[in-house]
Amino acid sequence: MKQAKSGEITEEVRAIAKKENVTVEKLQRSICAGRTVIPKNVIRENVEPVGIGSGLRVKVNANLGTSPEHADLKEEIEKAGAAVECGADTIMDLSTGGDLDKIRKEMLRIPVPLGSVPIYQAGVEKAKKGKLVDMGEEKIFKVIEKQAKDGVDFMTLHVGLTLESLQKLLKQGRLTGIVSRGGSFLATWMLQNERENPLYKNYEHVLDIAEKYDVTLSLGDALRPGSIKDSTDRAQVQELIILGELVEEARQRSVQCMVEGPGHMRMNEIEANVILQKKLCGDAPFYVLGPLVTDIALGYDHITAAIGGAMAALAGADFLCYVTPAEHLALPSIEDVREGVIAAKIAAHAADIARGTDLDRDDEMAKARADLNWSKQFKLCLDPKKAMEFRKKRLPHIPEVCSMCGEFCAMKIGRDYLKGKRSDPGLTYEKVEHLAESLLIKEIKKHAHHKKLDPRKI
Amino acid sequence: MKQAKSGEITEEVRAIAKKENVTVEKLQRSICAGRTVIPKNVIRENVEPVGIGSGLRVKVNANLGTSPEHADLKEEIEKAGAAVECGADTIMDLSTGGDLDKIRKEMLRIPVPLGSVPIYQAGVEKAKKGKLVDMGEEKIFKVIEKQAKDGVDFMTLHVGLTLESLQKLLKQGRLTGIVSRGGSFLATWMLQNERENPLYKNYEHVLDIAEKYDVTLSLGDALRPGSIKDSTDRAQVQELIILGELVEEARQRSVQCMVEGPGHMRMNEIEANVILQKKLCGDAPFYVLGPLVTDIALGYDHITAAIGGAMAALAGADFLCYVTPAEHLALPSIEDVREGVIAAKIAAHAADIARGTDLDRDDEMAKARADLNWSKQFKLCLDPKKAMEFRKKRLPHIPEVCSMCGEFCAMKIGRDYLKGKRSDPGLTYEKVEHLAESLLIKEIKKHAHHKKLDPRKI
Repeated sequence: MKQAKSGEITEEVRAIAKKENVTVEKLQRSICAGRTVIPKNVIRENVEPVGIGSGLRVKVNANLGTSPEHADLKEEIEKAGAAVECGADTIMDLSTGGDLDKIRKEMLRIPVPLGSVPIYQAGVEKAKKGKLVDMGEEKIFKVIEKQAKDGVDFMTLHVGLTLESLQKLLKQGRLTGIVSRGGSFLATWMLQNERENPLYKNYEHVLDIAEKYDVTLSLGDALRPGSIKDSTDRAQVQELIILGELVEEARQRSVQCMVEGPGHMRMNEIEANVILQKKLCGDAPFYVLGPLVTDIALGYDHITAAIGGAMAALAGADFLCYVTPAEHLALPSIEDVREGVIAAKIAAHAADIARGTDLDRDDEMAKARADLNWSKQFKLCLDPKKAMEFRKKRLPHIPEVCSMCGEFCAMKIGRDYLKGKRSDPGLTYEKVEHLAESLLIKEIKKHAHHKKLDPRKI
Repeated sequence: MKQAKSGEITEEVRAIAKKENVTVEKLQRSICAGRTVIPKNVIRENVEPVGIGSGLRVKVNANLGTSPEHADLKEEIEKAGAAVECGADTIMDLSTGGDLDKIRKEMLRIPVPLGSVPIYQAGVEKAKKGKLVDMGEEKIFKVIEKQAKDGVDFMTLHVGLTLESLQKLLKQGRLTGIVSRGGSFLATWMLQNERENPLYKNYEHVLDIAEKYDVTLSLGDALRPGSIKDSTDRAQVQELIILGELVEEARQRSVQCMVEGPGHMRMNEIEANVILQKKLCGDAPFYVLGPLVTDIALGYDHITAAIGGAMAALAGADFLCYVTPAEHLALPSIEDVREGVIAAKIAAHAADIARGTDLDRDDEMAKARADLNWSKQFKLCLDPKKAMEFRKKRLPHIPEVCSMCGEFCAMKIGRDYLKGKRSDPGLTYEKVEHLAESLLIKEIKKHAHHKKLDPRKI
């Protein structure tokens, strides 16, 4: 952002402009204004730059990382690889189990932007020796600095969870309280220690670190709703107002930042939430988790998130955090990660085409479908492996169709009987027109004859 | 509809009013006006009545049936059972392979309304002996009458595929032409025989049969778009106009009818399509297949359909036809059927809660989640079996949480540290308020001190 403001056009900006089919000038303006971010730590080299924000394709993030219940580094790295293979634009390391520094360093070898939530490490390491509430302020900042030094490209920091927003929460009450893990760490700390959020109190210090390493801030929504009932409540909106102030301060320091958003929410609230975020936060890129459009779809929350994410992206959200089918139930498996990424990619792409970008691939796909060209369909689809598996499970006897309709495939009938017909002298378009015309005339005559002419019908 | 118009309140109306929490009077008015249908053949007895339309919960249909490639009656019956178990409100038998009469009779033993597409049987049986184009007009009506006599509750009939609408299609061209199977049968017949659609020409005869057996017509959209590129085109809208006329004629005969809708479509077109259907067709119940919001998600079209279906239902669609992950690839397996039904149920339910009905279940679920009450969560969710499998795959060591966050579960932290705190004399709400207040005063003073007072900021 600093470079953009100074008029310097970085190679990252050039690369992204080319990839996204926008002009360098437009992209540069958007970065200066804070409407677009490029999360890339100054010390990182092996990373494909990704632009997130206004006028660009909607991006997808995959959350990975161990838990105290299951900490297998190799498995997490495999999952990360699968996520990127399926099309995740960025990944986040949310590990809370095992050797956190080592996991992060391994994750940083994967060539996509990496995000983290430093409060996890601060909380986990403190909780090991004592209680969460004993987490020292200096510890939090030490972890942030360490992770920045390691090369983390963007960080979720729940700066907006202030006593003021917490007060709103306590005043109104909620069905599911605080469901953000980092938020619950901080809220516990604040209430037990009777102190303001250290990230908020020392925001200047946060900005110092972010500025030094060009870490993009992802201003976390600690008070995001964890249920349909709690959405768009006063606590959530209060925090969003504060996040808007924090965006402004970050921009004054040329620190890139995004704003995170809910959560669980009814479909009819999604557009309003996006508009509110965009207005209150000066059009900062909006990074949403979900929204999950119902609470009752345990085991299928990649679908509830795809519905909500697609609608949010259509309304203007820029960055979708995937949700896997294991959400609310277990640490995801590699298969869950794949399903989660593809579901989020569907949502992102559906929004891209509805917003008018990126239509060519769908049209090519439709053409391949009409041509019964299977190899081309597999090449163009989001998950060729899975698509091929489906087809193989039940191969048709007539190779050009599929086992659903077999010989009665509408595409085949269309091709065999209809497509050629326009040029067939036996049935030209003119003939159909003529037939239709003569039938219409008969029809009109019939009506005039049978029915009393009703002047309201003419 | 005839009974409703005569003022008779049937037991079906009473049962549905109770189940849907609407008054009998309101439901009755809606049936009279044709805004709601109850698809139930006069001869059927073993069927749970289902209301589809205005003010009622959004319903889900599952398509089943053999193909010439794979015709296993037992398997289809199993699939039908699985569909109903997962919450399908109705099923359709779209068989085109094996003993069609036998399959239908078996399907009719399942106690939910059954739909069919009679043109399939007419076309298949004719195609066996000769070409599709040899299908006789009398054969089509014979099949319709036979299926009605068997007890079929609703029938898809592509009456709106007239020479007039076909002419619009031929004039403009399309990427994927006609993708409706029944539509392609009829179009082939019409173009090869150079005749008007027999269903349209003899619509009075269709209505005679429907009236006799109280079969609900589902006016098919033969010209639904089969790709993003083809959506909301002149051919589709032309057919919809004709469907509107057909609805009016059916209502004059007190024949219940629904209108079918697309198809493949960008998200930003969905609302307009629903509004158009409702206006052009006198608020007849809208039965949508999808809409699929992108073409490139082969193997995941249950998700593209869930996104589109949820948005269509939010805009006013009444009835969602499921799409399985095998769509465009293969005849679905039993597992595909389950996934398809649940995805459609998610879409329907998400719309129901956004439309303001049926919120209790989500709230109960959220409460169970906050209480870490797993057995209750499983009881309340859409697919307990699958949810339990996920949890079992990776059971946590601390039984009350899940393996995703383990001991750092926000719900657990909330319960252990925060929830009790409001009544804890050590940290009352008043104390938080007091703390927040004193910090706010400091903040305001700091601003006043450090910054020049900007009148635009007061």
